[in-house]
Amino acid sequence: TIDWNPVMAEKAGYKHFMLKEIYEQPRAIVDTFRSVLDLSAFEVFFPEAHLDRELLSKIDRVFLVACGTSFHAALVGKYMLEKLCRVPVEVDLASEFRYRDPILDERCLLLVISQSGETADTRAALVEGVQKGAHCRAIVNVLGSSLARMAQGVIYTHAGPEIGVASTKAFTTQLVALFLLSIYWATKIGTISSESRREALQHLLELPRKMDELLNDGGVIQHWAKRYVHVTDFLYLARGILFPIALEGALKLKEISYIHAEGYAAGEMKHGPIALIDENMPVVVLLRKGELYEKMISNVQEVLARDGQILALVEGAKDPKIGPLELQLEIPETCEWLAPVLFVVPLQLLAYHIAVMRGTDVDQPRNLAKSVTVE
Amino acid sequence: TIDWNPVMAEKAGYKHFMLKEIYEQPRAIVDTFRSVLDLSAFEVFFPEAHLDRELLSKIDRVFLVACGTSFHAALVGKYMLEKLCRVPVEVDLASEFRYRDPILDERCLLLVISQSGETADTRAALVEGVQKGAHCRAIVNVLGSSLARMAQGVIYTHAGPEIGVASTKAFTTQLVALFLLSIYWATKIGTISSESRREALQHLLELPRKMDELLNDGGVIQHWAKRYVHVTDFLYLARGILFPIALEGALKLKEISYIHAEGYAAGEMKHGPIALIDENMPVVVLLRKGELYEKMISNVQEVLARDGQILALVEGAKDPKIGPLELQLEIPETCEWLAPVLFVVPLQLLAYHIAVMRGTDVDQPRNLAKSVTVE
Repeated sequence: TIDWNPVMAEKAGYKHFMLKEIYEQPRAIVDTFRSVLDLSAFEVFFPEAHLDRELLSKIDRVFLVACGTSFHAALVGKYMLEKLCRVPVEVDLASEFRYRDPILDERCLLLVISQSGETADTRAALVEGVQKGAHCRAIVNVLGSSLARMAQGVIYTHAGPEIGVASTKAFTTQLVALFLLSIYWATKIGTISSESRREALQHLLELPRKMDELLNDGGVIQHWAKRYVHVTDFLYLARGILFPIALEGALKLKEISYIHAEGYAAGEMKHGPIALIDENMPVVVLLRKGELYEKMISNVQEVLARDGQILALVEGAKDPKIGPLELQLEIPETCEWLAPVLFVVPLQLLAYHIAVMRGTDVDQPRNLAKSVTVE
Repeated sequence: TIDWNPVMAEKAGYKHFMLKEIYEQPRAIVDTFRSVLDLSAFEVFFPEAHLDRELLSKIDRVFLVACGTSFHAALVGKYMLEKLCRVPVEVDLASEFRYRDPILDERCLLLVISQSGETADTRAALVEGVQKGAHCRAIVNVLGSSLARMAQGVIYTHAGPEIGVASTKAFTTQLVALFLLSIYWATKIGTISSESRREALQHLLELPRKMDELLNDGGVIQHWAKRYVHVTDFLYLARGILFPIALEGALKLKEISYIHAEGYAAGEMKHGPIALIDENMPVVVLLRKGELYEKMISNVQEVLARDGQILALVEGAKDPKIGPLELQLEIPETCEWLAPVLFVVPLQLLAYHIAVMRGTDVDQPRNLAKSVTVE
């Protein structure tokens, strides 16, 4: 007989909320774009954001401010907004920003990002922005939360309730919201053609299916987890728009497996961290095809030459230059802006499976709270 | 008899170049400010920087771009320039900046920082800046180096030759150069009173003596090193202008001791890293008196409550709230801008002594080169 109880029912048969929430991501992404996308005209609408053409044309600096996982979404957002809208974006940790006496005025947009909408430092950052006369908006998941009420406009992620302390579907829906905002903004100020917009949004429509593919392919990650469950340290390397995903992958492992994992911009390896590399240090690398691919391959070869072990997520086809094929996982191809959404999924699963094998309390990791409402 | 050879002679009796260079810092700092400071009028001059009042008034965004240790100097520089000159500053890793298609124009100042003046990614960033019409300057240590020749103006650090791969005196002289530049800039555009300028420069004049005090007090650090020599992981926490020093302290330990050390903004602890804390994870904390002090104390108490071990550098007097007094080191008081120069010294010594006790090749750590001239 199956031992069944109400909490398990809420988990819909999954062993942990975190796993359930990882698997809910394709649907959460659909929910996040469905409400703001007009598919007949391939247009984006954000009625509650209060960002009209006149305002957007006036903004000459954007601040994305957040904590933890939401901070990593902000780093990806900087890439998208700067490249698609050609507006300078500064990203900051809320706990640092608020004490920095930041230079803000009425030509600045301050956009804070938080799953709960209650994060104490992020709230304080928003207050600072309002006081200094910046235009303040929020990306939040919880309707009617403090940030949603305090900001002068809101973009909602529609991830649904997130119970696991380690954020997963809230993160990927934040990435999608930032993507949609970038497309919306670029359309308003005329920095994207309707053809490019249609192409980008077409990639978005195909994203949930590609994510499902990745989720159904979880066996490889379980194999990796088994192989590296007893390791004490991990490095995660990437460049460009995937660099924040290296940070996020490392954070997941820290949070629920208590393994000291660190994310690094791959170009910084030779300036210090490569001294750590030996046969005991697995290195997770994220590779997209494109101008940074060869640079990443050269980082990989430096690691291999020092007996480091490479676990690679590779967009498109595996590559023998990266090492043994069984330590490579193919990531479906998509556009640059949406690649982070796919690359993070196997990293969530890797952290999850390692944590389960180590017997930690996955949904309630030691020392952590779901929403950090004290400073 | 003493076994004497030419290399030892160059080390002036020190066991390693790195130790010699750590002890040369007070003099290197004097050399760096002496050449640009008029002590009769308390004024700063940078004739080779080509930064006149007209240009500085026009600049509305500054980019500080560097790699490794110089990147940490850039992070401190952002604090100083933003607070003293009220000009927005963005800091970026050279290896990321160059592929980001950064938004630069003739109202931007790009300031690259490099000890050798030959760092490949930093050179490429400078080329990008020149091509996009930004005003490009360099802070370098080596006269006539590539960056010195390519930039449209130079500020030299006068650290003298740095042989140890792990940068020490080049870093602290970069901090001093950035401090002097901030004072110079603020004077030119009128955002600092002559009284505040005099006070700040007075702090600078007293800095070498305070640094000597710290260097003569090295016994405590040797004791800490002995106690933690076998530890595999370290965390370094700080806030505000000391946050980059947490990153730099961790990098030193990575580079020469091969210990996985990581620097973190203390406010981010509750968003993940605190899950790592147990009795095996020493945590180095940097505390200045002032508005962030109580926040840091609360971070310290969270670590202590989870059986973490705190090693504290405390400006002014030790504080029983931080834990056992033998694990606290007093840092002489100075102004906010110059505190990083003092706080980094014990962290250099900690990394050095741990490395020596572990028997690593301190001056030539595995896998690292002094100057990263390939990409």
